[in-house]
Amino acid sequence: MKKSLGAKILIVPSPVWCVGTYNEDGSPNVMTASWAGVCCSEPPCVAISLRRATQTFQNLMRTKAFTLSVPSNQFAKEADYFGMVSGRKKDKFKETKLMAVPGELVKAPFVGEFSLVAECRVVHTFELGLHTQFVGEILDVKADEDILSKDGLPDMEKLAPFLYSAVDQEYYFTGSKLGGAFDIGTTRPENKPPTF
Amino acid sequence: MKKSLGAKILIVPSPVWCVGTYNEDGSPNVMTASWAGVCCSEPPCVAISLRRATQTFQNLMRTKAFTLSVPSNQFAKEADYFGMVSGRKKDKFKETKLMAVPGELVKAPFVGEFSLVAECRVVHTFELGLHTQFVGEILDVKADEDILSKDGLPDMEKLAPFLYSAVDQEYYFTGSKLGGAFDIGTTRPENKPPTF
Repeated sequence: MKKSLGAKILIVPSPVWCVGTYNEDGSPNVMTASWAGVCCSEPPCVAISLRRATQTFQNLMRTKAFTLSVPSNQFAKEADYFGMVSGRKKDKFKETKLMAVPGELVKAPFVGEFSLVAECRVVHTFELGLHTQFVGEILDVKADEDILSKDGLPDMEKLAPFLYSAVDQEYYFTGSKLGGAFDIGTTRPENKPPTF
Repeated sequence: MKKSLGAKILIVPSPVWCVGTYNEDGSPNVMTASWAGVCCSEPPCVAISLRRATQTFQNLMRTKAFTLSVPSNQFAKEADYFGMVSGRKKDKFKETKLMAVPGELVKAPFVGEFSLVAECRVVHTFELGLHTQFVGEILDVKADEDILSKDGLPDMEKLAPFLYSAVDQEYYFTGSKLGGAFDIGTTRPENKPPTF
């Protein structure tokens, strides 16, 4: 029997993505967003939602560019800090001793120590309520060479991303591999389900 | 040194959410979406992106209502099947022997065996390219009583959601708890970062 819990954000999981932008004076800023996700394959786009009150919102409206830096679990404290403190009050790169690296294709900085980053240009801005959604087209993804597997793609174990759970407001490690997507669900070619 | 990997969806993690809708003839349909995420706190909204070619897209355009059912890892095969096979060709509930339960507040079915579900009404539709994004306002979240913790909220260990990695097209278990969000990142009250 299911119990009603109300009209609340009680759904999981959410990503932990650090959004890099430049302030008006050219200094780098970064904040963590979890109201976010991939939203289109072609063009490749991600969506991030921000409150108007944030410095990053102001920066995005002006620059129309951002980066996403994906923290590995060893940087969970830094990522959490990025989400708690405003760039108006603190230089978050300086405080955490992390490096702001200028994007190559967009006017936005990424976190040098985070091993996977995406450079994005804002292609849509949608007012949804408390949050405004920015859709960014991914112009390039960059990864540290030492996290790449033999096929040239990031190795999830080395990348070691973590998750945010809105249900209990906790971060969780990524666990072990469960199975292949577009694979474990059918016995091809008849597209019949396997025995469940 | 970072290596460029191109303009690709190489970012993680993504959720695994099963989207329930009714077909025109009233039969229930369900598909798995991973291009998705929370997108607004007030009103509470989620975004799911679908290709026009899907049956779910057609259903959403007509009914403006959907549910999200969050599969636990024991239902990974079923969730993968829901994402691989079209509702035009198969009755996915029948094939997987899972139960389509009518939503209470919206005209859309959820997966009875999945322990966490959200009922949503479509409030925005955005054309982004290959994918169209549907923003759904969460009208209610329902959970099986046996996954609720003492505080009345879902227990993540009992819920046992899993993730999709677009980097290697694999599913991953949710791992153990890493630390509290809005907590591990600062030593209050000065909003100073802890020692990293």
